[in-house]
Amino acid sequence: MSLHGTRVIDLTRVISGPFCTQQLADLGADVIKVEGPKGDPLRAQGSKIDGMSAYFASFNRNKRSVVLDLRTPDGMAVLKKLIAGADMLVENFKPGTMAKMGLSDADLEMLNPLLIVCHISGFGQTGPYAARPSFDFVAQAMSGFMWTNGEDGAPPLRSGLPISDLVAGLYAALGCTAALAVPTESRTFKSIDIAMTDSMVSMLAYMATEVFATGQALPRVGNDHPLVAPYGLFETSDGHVAIAASNDQIVDRLFSLLDCRHLFDDPRFATNDARVRHRDEIRAEVQARLEGRTTESWLERLNDAGVPAGPVLDVVAALDDPQIRHREMVMAPDGARAGKMKILGFPIKQSVDEPTLRRSAPELGEHTEEVLCRL
Amino acid sequence: MSLHGTRVIDLTRVISGPFCTQQLADLGADVIKVEGPKGDPLRAQGSKIDGMSAYFASFNRNKRSVVLDLRTPDGMAVLKKLIAGADMLVENFKPGTMAKMGLSDADLEMLNPLLIVCHISGFGQTGPYAARPSFDFVAQAMSGFMWTNGEDGAPPLRSGLPISDLVAGLYAALGCTAALAVPTESRTFKSIDIAMTDSMVSMLAYMATEVFATGQALPRVGNDHPLVAPYGLFETSDGHVAIAASNDQIVDRLFSLLDCRHLFDDPRFATNDARVRHRDEIRAEVQARLEGRTTESWLERLNDAGVPAGPVLDVVAALDDPQIRHREMVMAPDGARAGKMKILGFPIKQSVDEPTLRRSAPELGEHTEEVLCRL
Repeated sequence: MSLHGTRVIDLTRVISGPFCTQQLADLGADVIKVEGPKGDPLRAQGSKIDGMSAYFASFNRNKRSVVLDLRTPDGMAVLKKLIAGADMLVENFKPGTMAKMGLSDADLEMLNPLLIVCHISGFGQTGPYAARPSFDFVAQAMSGFMWTNGEDGAPPLRSGLPISDLVAGLYAALGCTAALAVPTESRTFKSIDIAMTDSMVSMLAYMATEVFATGQALPRVGNDHPLVAPYGLFETSDGHVAIAASNDQIVDRLFSLLDCRHLFDDPRFATNDARVRHRDEIRAEVQARLEGRTTESWLERLNDAGVPAGPVLDVVAALDDPQIRHREMVMAPDGARAGKMKILGFPIKQSVDEPTLRRSAPELGEHTEEVLCRL
Repeated sequence: MSLHGTRVIDLTRVISGPFCTQQLADLGADVIKVEGPKGDPLRAQGSKIDGMSAYFASFNRNKRSVVLDLRTPDGMAVLKKLIAGADMLVENFKPGTMAKMGLSDADLEMLNPLLIVCHISGFGQTGPYAARPSFDFVAQAMSGFMWTNGEDGAPPLRSGLPISDLVAGLYAALGCTAALAVPTESRTFKSIDIAMTDSMVSMLAYMATEVFATGQALPRVGNDHPLVAPYGLFETSDGHVAIAASNDQIVDRLFSLLDCRHLFDDPRFATNDARVRHRDEIRAEVQARLEGRTTESWLERLNDAGVPAGPVLDVVAALDDPQIRHREMVMAPDGARAGKMKILGFPIKQSVDEPTLRRSAPELGEHTEEVLCRL
C-alpha cells in the first residue's frame, strides 16, 4: 500500500474532510478518526442498516474510531499525544476553531515539528470571507459552478451531489499525498489550506477561459455544449441517448451513420463554429434522423461507428451496470453487516498497491481502547 | 516543490490527462508534453490571445512541449529514450492504442522497470465497454451523475463543466502522487488505470448510499436537497440567495432570524424528516419571510446569524469576487502575453512548497531542441 506506515489523525466530520481522509486510508494510511461522544453528525444522516448509516459507511471505511471529549483537559491531552506521534492531521472545522482549542499551526508545530496539517473549509483560512459559515451549496453558488448548470432561460441549478465537498476533499488528499512524497530528510512542518470555493473555481475550465479571452461568459445551454454542436440529449423511440460529437472527425462519423453527409455542404453546418451558431437547426436535423429506433439500437450503432454515446442511467441502473460491476465499483464488506451493507468501490485501480477494504466503517469509539493502550 | 526532481512524460491531450499532468507540474514535477506535429487539439479550441488558446493555456502551464511524429521510427525511438529516463508516463488514448504503438505495459516495463504509468480513459482498461469511444458527457450520463441533476419532472441535466474529465484527472494525479510517496527502494513498475465512469460513481455520495440502504433512488429535486429542508434557492427583492440550512442548529438560527421559531411547534416542521416530507410548505414559509429585502441585505443578516448562505455568482462575478481575488485564484502570467492572458490559480495553498507559476503554457514544440539535446 502506497501510504503504508503513515499515521493520520482525523478530526474531520460530515463530507469534505472524511472524503479526504478516506482517500488516504484507501491508499494505505492508518487513519485514526477522533470523534466527540456524540460522533460524526453523518452517523445520524440517511438510511441505516443494523444501526449504521449507509452514508457514514461510504465515507469512513478503512479508518479506526477513537472517542475523545475535547472539551475536557484529559481529552485534549490524549489528542496532543496522538498528534505528537502522527505524520499528519486533517481537520474541517470552521476557520479559527483549531486556534481556540489551542491547536493553531504554531501550537501544532511545537507539538510535532514535522507534522503535515491540512485544513479544509468553505472559503479558506484567509481572506475577507474566511470567518463566514459555509457549506457545499454556498460554494457551488459562489464559485460560478452553479451558474453554468441549467437550461437556457431557467435559473442556475446546483448539482444533485455535494460536488464542492467532494472536489475539495480530493484536492486535500492530493496536497497531503504530495507532502508525503517529499523525502523524509527534506520534510518540515507544512500547513495546507484547501477552500471549497477555490477548488470549484479551479474547475471552471472553458467557462473561465472564455471570460479571460473575451470578458464575456458563455451562455448556459442545458444539455448542449456551449462550444460544440451537435452535442446533447436526443430522443429515441423509447427514451434518450446522450451524443458527444466533440470534434469534426466524430461529426463526420455521425453524419455518415445517419446518411446525411450532405449537411456539410450547407454553410450553416460546414464547420463547428457555424454549427454552434445554428445549434437549434443542427439539433433538429440530427433529432429527425434518430426517430424510429430504440435507445439500445442507437447505442449499438453509434458505438460501432465510433461516436461517443450513452444512455442516461438512473443511480440504481448505474450501480448495476455491467461495466461498473466489472470494475468492482460497488463492494460488499465482510463483518457484522455482511450481505446487507454495500459501499462504493475504489476508483484508483493499480497493478500493485491496489487499494483494498481492510476494515468497514467503524462503530463510534470502536478502537478507543486499542489506540489509547498504545499511547 | 513537493514533486521536484520527478520527470513525467505526458502523452495526454484535451482535458482529463492534461488536467492530471498539470496538477503534477504545479506540484513541482518536470512534465514533458509530447505532441504530434499538429499539437494537442485543445490548442485549436475556444478563443485565442495572440495565437494561444486560452483554454489550452489553463490546462498546460508549468509544462514543456516537445514535438515528435510518433508515426515515424525516429519519433518512436526518441519517445522510448525519454520514457527510459523518466519516473512516470501519463496517457489518455483510447484503450488499446498504446499497445498498437508498441507501448503496452509489458513493453514499458522492459523499457523502464521502475516506471509508473497512468492510463486515463472513459470506461477503464478492462471490462465489457473498455473499447467503446467515450467522452465526458457519456461518463456523466452513464455514471448516474447526470440523473441526479435537474428539476423534479424535467429531464436529467449534464453539468455545464466537463466534470468527469476533471474528476478523473484529479484521481489520476492522486494515484500518481501516491506512487511517488512509496520509498524509492520499495518501488516496482506500477500501472494505474483510471476511468471517468468509475471516478464519477465514486462521488455518488448519498445518492448511492440510499440505493444501498433502501434499493430506491432519491428523487431529483432541483436546487432543493433530497435529505434536508429548508434548503435551496430563494427569491429576494432583487435576485436570489442560496440557503443551506443543513442541520437542526442552523434551522434554529434561520427561524430565529426570520422570527418564526413558532414553526417548530407545527408537527409538519418540527423535525428534519417532517420538513423533508413537507418540503414545499416549509419552502413557502421561508420564502414569504425573505421578501422586501435585497440579496445583499439578506446575505449580511444570514451570515451574521451563522446561516450558510451565498449569492449565485455568474462566472465573471465569481472570478472577480474579493475572496477569489484574495486567494489568487486568477493569475496573470509574465512572458510574451503579459497583461493579456489570465489563467486559473492553484487550489492547493501551502505554507511551504507552494505551487508556483514557473512557466506559462508552451508554444507547440517550444522545448523540442532543449529536451532532445539532453538525450
